[in-house]
Amino acid sequence: MGIVLNGGTIVTAADVYQADVRIEGERIAAIGCDIKQPGDQAIDVDGCFLFPGGIDPHTHFDLPMGDFSTSDDFESGTKAAVMGGTTTIIDFATQFKGETLKEGLMNWHRKAKDKCFADYGFHMAITDWNESIAQEMSELIHQDGVPSFKLYMAYKSILQVDDGALLQALRQAGEFGALVCVHCENGDIVYDLVHEHVAKGKTSPFYHPLSRPPVVEEEATSRVITLAQLAGAPLYIVHLTSSGALQAVNNARMKGQEVYAETCPQYLLLDDSYYSAEGFNGAKYVISPPLRPVQHQERLWSGLKAGVLDVVATDHCALNYIGQKDKGLNDFSKIPNGAAGVETRMGLLYTYGVSAGKLTLNEFIALTSTNAAKLFGLFPRKGTIAPGSDADLVVWDPRISTVIRADELHQQVDYTPFEGFKQSGQAIHVFLRGKQVVQGGQLRVDKPTGIYLSRKPFLKRKVG
Amino acid sequence: MGIVLNGGTIVTAADVYQADVRIEGERIAAIGCDIKQPGDQAIDVDGCFLFPGGIDPHTHFDLPMGDFSTSDDFESGTKAAVMGGTTTIIDFATQFKGETLKEGLMNWHRKAKDKCFADYGFHMAITDWNESIAQEMSELIHQDGVPSFKLYMAYKSILQVDDGALLQALRQAGEFGALVCVHCENGDIVYDLVHEHVAKGKTSPFYHPLSRPPVVEEEATSRVITLAQLAGAPLYIVHLTSSGALQAVNNARMKGQEVYAETCPQYLLLDDSYYSAEGFNGAKYVISPPLRPVQHQERLWSGLKAGVLDVVATDHCALNYIGQKDKGLNDFSKIPNGAAGVETRMGLLYTYGVSAGKLTLNEFIALTSTNAAKLFGLFPRKGTIAPGSDADLVVWDPRISTVIRADELHQQVDYTPFEGFKQSGQAIHVFLRGKQVVQGGQLRVDKPTGIYLSRKPFLKRKVG
Amino acid sequence: MGIVLNGGTIVTAADVYQADVRIEGERIAAIGCDIKQPGDQAIDVDGCFLFPGGIDPHTHFDLPMGDFSTSDDFESGTKAAVMGGTTTIIDFATQFKGETLKEGLMNWHRKAKDKCFADYGFHMAITDWNESIAQEMSELIHQDGVPSFKLYMAYKSILQVDDGALLQALRQAGEFGALVCVHCENGDIVYDLVHEHVAKGKTSPFYHPLSRPPVVEEEATSRVITLAQLAGAPLYIVHLTSSGALQAVNNARMKGQEVYAETCPQYLLLDDSYYSAEGFNGAKYVISPPLRPVQHQERLWSGLKAGVLDVVATDHCALNYIGQKDKGLNDFSKIPNGAAGVETRMGLLYTYGVSAGKLTLNEFIALTSTNAAKLFGLFPRKGTIAPGSDADLVVWDPRISTVIRADELHQQVDYTPFEGFKQSGQAIHVFLRGKQVVQGGQLRVDKPTGIYLSRKPFLKRKVG
Amino acid sequence: MGIVLNGGTIVTAADVYQADVRIEGERIAAIGCDIKQPGDQAIDVDGCFLFPGGIDPHTHFDLPMGDFSTSDDFESGTKAAVMGGTTTIIDFATQFKGETLKEGLMNWHRKAKDKCFADYGFHMAITDWNESIAQEMSELIHQDGVPSFKLYMAYKSILQVDDGALLQALRQAGEFGALVCVHCENGDIVYDLVHEHVAKGKTSPFYHPLSRPPVVEEEATSRVITLAQLAGAPLYIVHLTSSGALQAVNNARMKGQEVYAETCPQYLLLDDSYYSAEGFNGAKYVISPPLRPVQHQERLWSGLKAGVLDVVATDHCALNYIGQKDKGLNDFSKIPNGAAGVETRMGLLYTYGVSAGKLTLNEFIALTSTNAAKLFGLFPRKGTIAPGSDADLVVWDPRISTVIRADELHQQVDYTPFEGFKQSGQAIHVFLRGKQVVQGGQLRVDKPTGIYLSRKPFLKRKVG
Repeated sequence: MGIVLNGGTIVTAADVYQADVRIEGERIAAIGCDIKQPGDQAIDVDGCFLFPGGIDPHTHFDLPMGDFSTSDDFESGTKAAVMGGTTTIIDFATQFKGETLKEGLMNWHRKAKDKCFADYGFHMAITDWNESIAQEMSELIHQDGVPSFKLYMAYKSILQVDDGALLQALRQAGEFGALVCVHCENGDIVYDLVHEHVAKGKTSPFYHPLSRPPVVEEEATSRVITLAQLAGAPLYIVHLTSSGALQAVNNARMKGQEVYAETCPQYLLLDDSYYSAEGFNGAKYVISPPLRPVQHQERLWSGLKAGVLDVVATDHCALNYIGQKDKGLNDFSKIPNGAAGVETRMGLLYTYGVSAGKLTLNEFIALTSTNAAKLFGLFPRKGTIAPGSDADLVVWDPRISTVIRADELHQQVDYTPFEGFKQSGQAIHVFLRGKQVVQGGQLRVDKPTGIYLSRKPFLKRKVG
Repeated sequence: MGIVLNGGTIVTAADVYQADVRIEGERIAAIGCDIKQPGDQAIDVDGCFLFPGGIDPHTHFDLPMGDFSTSDDFESGTKAAVMGGTTTIIDFATQFKGETLKEGLMNWHRKAKDKCFADYGFHMAITDWNESIAQEMSELIHQDGVPSFKLYMAYKSILQVDDGALLQALRQAGEFGALVCVHCENGDIVYDLVHEHVAKGKTSPFYHPLSRPPVVEEEATSRVITLAQLAGAPLYIVHLTSSGALQAVNNARMKGQEVYAETCPQYLLLDDSYYSAEGFNGAKYVISPPLRPVQHQERLWSGLKAGVLDVVATDHCALNYIGQKDKGLNDFSKIPNGAAGVETRMGLLYTYGVSAGKLTLNEFIALTSTNAAKLFGLFPRKGTIAPGSDADLVVWDPRISTVIRADELHQQVDYTPFEGFKQSGQAIHVFLRGKQVVQGGQLRVDKPTGIYLSRKPFLKRKVG
Repeated sequence: MGIVLNGGTIVTAADVYQADVRIEGERIAAIGCDIKQPGDQAIDVDGCFLFPGGIDPHTHFDLPMGDFSTSDDFESGTKAAVMGGTTTIIDFATQFKGETLKEGLMNWHRKAKDKCFADYGFHMAITDWNESIAQEMSELIHQDGVPSFKLYMAYKSILQVDDGALLQALRQAGEFGALVCVHCENGDIVYDLVHEHVAKGKTSPFYHPLSRPPVVEEEATSRVITLAQLAGAPLYIVHLTSSGALQAVNNARMKGQEVYAETCPQYLLLDDSYYSAEGFNGAKYVISPPLRPVQHQERLWSGLKAGVLDVVATDHCALNYIGQKDKGLNDFSKIPNGAAGVETRMGLLYTYGVSAGKLTLNEFIALTSTNAAKLFGLFPRKGTIAPGSDADLVVWDPRISTVIRADELHQQVDYTPFEGFKQSGQAIHVFLRGKQVVQGGQLRVDKPTGIYLSRKPFLKRKVG
Repeated sequence: MGIVLNGGTIVTAADVYQADVRIEGERIAAIGCDIKQPGDQAIDVDGCFLFPGGIDPHTHFDLPMGDFSTSDDFESGTKAAVMGGTTTIIDFATQFKGETLKEGLMNWHRKAKDKCFADYGFHMAITDWNESIAQEMSELIHQDGVPSFKLYMAYKSILQVDDGALLQALRQAGEFGALVCVHCENGDIVYDLVHEHVAKGKTSPFYHPLSRPPVVEEEATSRVITLAQLAGAPLYIVHLTSSGALQAVNNARMKGQEVYAETCPQYLLLDDSYYSAEGFNGAKYVISPPLRPVQHQERLWSGLKAGVLDVVATDHCALNYIGQKDKGLNDFSKIPNGAAGVETRMGLLYTYGVSAGKLTLNEFIALTSTNAAKLFGLFPRKGTIAPGSDADLVVWDPRISTVIRADELHQQVDYTPFEGFKQSGQAIHVFLRGKQVVQGGQLRVDKPTGIYLSRKPFLKRKVG
C-alpha cells in the first residue's frame, strides 16, 4: 500500500544516484533497488530527477500594505508554490506597534489556517521592541514552534528598529535558541535620499534604486554583523543583493562568526537597467533592496558557488501592476514595494544555475531546500530524500522547455518580473507528505492539505 | 545472501538519519526500514554511526628519500588506513628527472600491487616538465585513470618547477580534464633561508619553521592562484597551513575562480612550539610546510567551517625518529621531512571537530571522504552511503574513548606526532566493497584485498 | 627693529635646513644667511631646532560636565599649551539642545575672551540638528570664521545624532565649504553594553573599555565614511584609536574619498592594561574612546608613517582625580570622561616618534602643526616657517632630557596619564606672532596675548 | 652679485607663499622680502610659480637595445629634460652578464660625461648576481655615490633574476644603506604568454598588453614585497601601473613595511585602447608594463593623493617609430619596448593633476621633485627651495597654454605618446645651480653644464 517511484535519479545536497524510492504513508520508507512490496503502486519516473520538495523561507502572503493587502493570499500563494516545486514556505508573521508577539502570530495563523496547499511555518517579525517582548520570545521558540525572528534596519518610523533593539534581540535569540533574520538597509539614509529625490521632482521609478544604493545595504550588513558578534548570536541576512554586503558576510565567516545569507532569483538575473523600462513599467521592479548594477550578479553567483550564500528564497510579495503598483504613478516613493516569485524560483535557479553550468545539482538542492531546512529547524523532516523524512518529492523532468508567462502562472498577480525567461525542466509531479498534489504539471487536489510546521530551536555552533 | 546493518545512524555529507543498510556483493543495495531479504546476514550496529569509508588523497608510502625509503610501505600504510576508518588512499607516483610519466607511474604500480588493504589510486607528480610530458598527460588521464597531477614550488633543484612549467601544466590539465595539485612554498626563499640559518650555526630543529615562515607559503599560494587564473584551470592546494594562504584561496573563490584546498590534522592541532621540544625531539615535527604559530589554527578551523578548505588529508610520510630523522641530528636541513598520520586522521577530526562542536557530522564526512571523492574522480562510487555505491562502510562507535599511543598504532613508525591525544569514538567495524576488513577494532583479513582505482577525468565548472 | 634667530635648524613639513630667521613685527620677514638688518636683536639658537608653533585642534577647556566644569579653563589650558610648544588651539564650542549655533558660539567666546596665552579658534559642535541649523551653518562659516563642525555618534540622548542628521550636516558642510569632524563610536551599543556591565555589578574602571570595544569604533567609522561618500563631503575623524577604524579610513582614501583622521598621544603610548591599575587609579584613563589592547599601537604608528593619519591632537579634557573622577568611584559609568594632554603632546611625539626613529622631523611637524593648519583654514598663516607667516616659533633644544611629572606641568589638574614618561628635547623659547612668550623654559608674559582666529572655509578637492 | 627673483610664488612640498628668492653662486642664499643686496641682478617673475627643479629618477638614455641604442643620448635627453623643467635625472647604469658592477658603471660614466645639460646620477642595474657582486655593492654605495640598485623580475634569460638573487640583493642593500628598485612583472608568465600569442598568429601590437596583463604585475609586486619583508630592507617599485599592485604596496605600508612606489604620466593618462590604433600605430605605446584598462587610472590618481605613490617618473626610453619600433612590424614581441617622456612630465602632471584639481601644488612638487630627492640621497641639496640648497629653480608661468607636438619637443624621437595633449603652464626660465639654462622658454646655454651627482646612502626607518 505504498508508492514506489521507479527509475528516477535522486538528488540531495550531497548525492546524485539512480534508485527507486518507496513511500509509505507520509514518509519515505526505503531507497534502493528491489524495494517494492506487495500492494505498492508503482510510478515510472524514468529520465527524471527526484528533488526534495523546495523550501522558500521568505514569503509575504496576505500582507497588509496600507489600504490593501498583497495580491497573493495563503491559498493562491501556496498553490503557486507547489506548482513550482516548493512544498514548504515560511512566511513573516508581524508584530505591529503596540501588539504582543503572540497577537501578531495569531493574526497570521488566522490568515493561513486551512488555506495552504504547501506546508507552512512562520518567522516572527518584531517592530516594537521592549522588555516584555524579550521575555515573550522564549515562549514563541519553545511552545509555538517559531525559532526565528526578523528585524528591519529600514522603513524608518514604520518597521525600523534601532541598534539597541537589534543588539538586545540578537542577544536574547542567541540565548534562547533562535535565529535572527535581518533586512539590511540603513533606513535613515534611505529616508533622506528618497526625500531628496522627490523634493527635486525626481519621482519616476528610475530614482528608486538611486535612493537606496548598494552602500546603504553594505553599511547595514556590516553593522548588524558587528551587533551579532557582540551579542554572540548567529545571524541570517535576508535578500542580500550586493558585492559589498557579500564581502562583509564572507569576512565575518572567515573570522569564524556564524553568519548566514540568502539571495533571490531577481538579484541573480535582473539588474537596475529595468528601472529605465518604458513608461511606468519600471514600477514592476520596485522592490527593496532594489535591483543592482549588473556587475553585482557575477559576484552573487560566485557567492553561491563559494557557499557564502546559503539560501535562494524569493521575498515573494505580489502586487498588481494595475491597481496596486500604480498608487505611485506620480511618486516612486508611493509605489508599494515587492514582486512575486514563489512559483518561478526552482525553475529559474535550475535553468540559470544548473543547466548553465554555474551550480551543481547538489548545490541547487542545498540552496533551494536543504540549507533552509537546517537553518530553520525543519531538518531532516524536510530538505532531503532519506528514509524517515517526509515524502515531499518533486519529480523534475529536465527534458521539458518552457517560457515564463504571467498568464500561465498560478500566482494571483498581473505580471511577473521574469516574463519571457526561458525555463529548462519542470516539476511534473509533486508529492506533499506522500500525497500527490501535482500530476503531469497540473494541480490535482481540490482542497488545501498543507499543515502548520512547528519548528525546532536553532542550535548554535560552538565557537572555534 | 546480503548483509544488513541494523539500527545505525547513517551520516553523509548532507544527511544524518537512522536506517538500515543492505549490502549485496560489493555494493550498497538499499537503505530504509523493512529491507532485509531472506538469507541476509544481520549485524547490529545500534548506537553507532555509519560513515562512508574515509578517503585520504595525500599519502607517501614507500617513497625513496635518498638512501632509504619512508618506513610505511603500501602494506603497512594501507593496513593502518583501514584500521583508522580510511578505505581509499591516493598516493603520489613521481616522475623523477629524465623519466617519462609512464615510467614513474609503473614504478609506483610495482610498489603497490597486491599489497594494499585499502583501495588505492595515484596522482602523478611531475618534476621534469617538457613538451613531451604535456602530451603524455592526456594518456594518463584517459587511459591510466590518473586525472590529477602534482607540481612542487619548493625543493629547489630537486622537485621544484618554475612558473613557466606550472603555467603550461595547468593549461594542459585544464584542457585535458585533470586537476593540478600544488605544494605551495617559495623554494628559492626556503633555500636561501635554510642556508642563512645553517651558515650561522642555527642547526637545531627549532630553526626549521624559521627557514620557511608563513609568508613563504602565502606568496607561493597567491602566485599559483594567479597562474591557474591565467591558465583557466582548476587548482588544488595541498596541505594549506596558514591564514594568509587561506585568505588567498578565499579571495580567488569570491571572484569565482575554481580553487580547492586541503589541510591536515597536524596543522589544525599542533603548533610551532613543538619545535622547542627537549633535545632533538623537535625533529619529529619537521614537516613541510612546518607547524605554524598557534593563531593560525583558529583560522584554519574557520576555513573548514566556511567551506574554503575542502579536504582534510594527511600528507602521511612516515619516518622513524631513530634511524631516519636522526640523519639531521647536527643539521636540521638534513632531517628528512615528513610524519605519519593516515591511521589517526578520522579519529582526530571526529574528536576535535565533531565532538568539540566545531564541525557538524555532515562537514566531517564531506572533509574526510565526500569532497575528495568528487574532486578526484571517485564519486559516487566512493565518498557516500547510497544505493549503488561501493559498500565501503565504517561503523563508528562514539561511546569508545581511547588515547593515541604510537605503540598501539599499525603504522610502521616509531612515534606519532599525536602521542597522548585523546580520541572520542572508534572505527569498530570496517567494510571494503562489502567485505568486512575490520571487526571489533581488529584487522580480520590476512591478505590485502584493496584494488587499484582508475579514476574519472575532472569536470571543470563553467565560468560565471 | 626685528629679531633674528641665529644658527638654528629650521624644520617644516618638507624641509630641514640650517638658516637664520628674521622676524619683523608679528611675521617672519626673511630666512637665509646675511639677513640681519641694522637695529635687529639677535638671539642665538645654535644647536636647536626651529619648529612652527604647534597646533592642537582638539581641546575642551572650561567644558561643563554636569555639576562642574573641566579643571582647565582657557587661561590655564593655553598657558600649558604654549609651555609645551603649542601656540594655537582649536576648542569645541557646543550648541546644546534648544540653542542656536550662534548662542553656543557666543557662550564659548565669553569663556575664552582675554584669557588665552595661545591663539585660538572654535569648531562648532552640533547636538540638535534641524532645518534652521542647516541655514545657520553658512553664517558661521562665512562670517564667524568657523568652517568646521563636530557631530557625535556616541553619548546617546545627550550629544548623539542619528544618521539622518549626520548625512544632512555633511551635505550642507560640503556645499558651504566646511569640514565635519565626527566622534565615531556607536552610542546605541555603548549604552547597552554599559548597562549590561553595571547591571551585573561590573562597576570598576576595568569595565570601561569592555563597554566600548574597538568594533564599536570601527563600525561607526565605517558608517560615517559611507555617509560622507553619499553626501559628497570631506570628513575628519577625531581621536581614531583602533586598527579597524584605521583600515576603514585607508580603504576610503584608496578609493579617492576625502577622509582625514586624527589620533592622540594616549592611543599611541598607553594601552588598556592601565585599566587594571591598583584601586581606583584606572579612572585616570577613563576616556572615550578608551585605551586599546596594545597591538593597536603599532598599527597607529604605521598609520602615521603611511600618512593615513593626518593629525596628532590631544582631546585635552582635564579632570581632577580627586573631586572629579571620583564621582564614579562606585560606578565607572559615572566617571567623567577625559584626560589632559595639551602640554605634553609635542614632547611625547618628538620623543617616541622622532627620537625613536619612527617619524622623520618632517612628519612630526606635519602631524603636530602643518596638516591641522591646512585642514582648518589657518595655512599658511599658521603651520609653517616661511616669510609672510605668523612668527609662531618654537625653539626646541634636543639636548635636554626631562621626565614628565604632573606637579611640574602647568595644566591645572592633579595628575597626568604620562607620569614618569621620559621626554627628549624641550621648548626653551616660544614666540607667538613675534612676541616671545616662553624664555628659557619659563613663561615670560604676565597677560594673555592670544587672539581669536577667524578661519578660512574648507576647499574640497575635486573628485578623481 | 647675486640674482634676486622678485614677486614669484614659491612652492615646495609643504608650502605655497609669495616671497623673493636670492641666489648667490650655485646656491639659494635667502628668501623673504627686503633681501636684495647691492649689485644683485633682479629678475621679475611676477605671476609665476617658483618650483624646485624637477627630478626624474627613471630615464634610459643611450641604452643599447640589440643592434641599436635608444634615440635619446645623454645630450639630447638632458636638453629635453631642462626644457621641461627637470634639472636632475637619474639613469640606469647596467651590469650585463659577466661584468662587474664597476665595469657597468664606468660604461655609463663614459656615455654621460660632458654631455649633460641637467645634473645626473646613476642607479646600478644588476643582471648577474653572485657573491662577489654582493661585496662590490658596498663600494658603489660608499665610494661611487650610487646608493640605489635595480633588479628585474621580467625579461627572462636577459635581465631577469630569480627570487634567491632578489632576496640576497635586498638583504645586502638593506645592510649597506641602499635602496633596491624593482621592475615587477613575472617574466616566466610573460615569456609563456608572448609565445602563446605569437604561436597563434596574434602578432599585432594589440596583443602586447594581453601578453602581460595586470595580474602579472600584481603577482610580482606582491612577491618582491614579501622578499623585502624577509630581508628587512626598504623597497622601491618602479613604474607601478595597476590597482592590484597599488593595493599590495598599500597593504605593506599599513603593516609598517617600508615600500615606496613610482608611477609615470603614461599610466595616469593613457590606456590600453591605444593598442587598437590604426595600422601599426599601437607600436608607439609598446612599453612594459603596458598601458592598462582605463579603470586603473582613477586608482593611480587616488594612490597619488593618498601618498601611496611617492614619485612620478618617466621611464624615458626613446625609440623612433620609423627605424626602431618597426623592427616588430610583423611580430609585436620584436618591437623594442619604451617611449619618451622626460620633457613632458612636469607639464602633464601640472595640467592633469594641479589644474584639474586632483593634486595640490604641494603634492605636485613632492611627486616630481622632493620625494625623489629624499629617497635617492639628494636632499636637501636638490628637491626644495630653501637657503643652502642648489639654486635649481623653475619659473613656471601658469598663464601659458600650449599643445604637445612631437616636432616642437627637444627629445630626439619622431613621436610622442602625448601628441595633441593640452598643457597648462610652462617652464619659462630654468636655473641649474644658479645658472640660467632656459630663458623665455628657449635653451640659452651652448654647452652642457650638468655634473655627476654623488649621492648619499639610504637611511632605513627604524621599525615600529
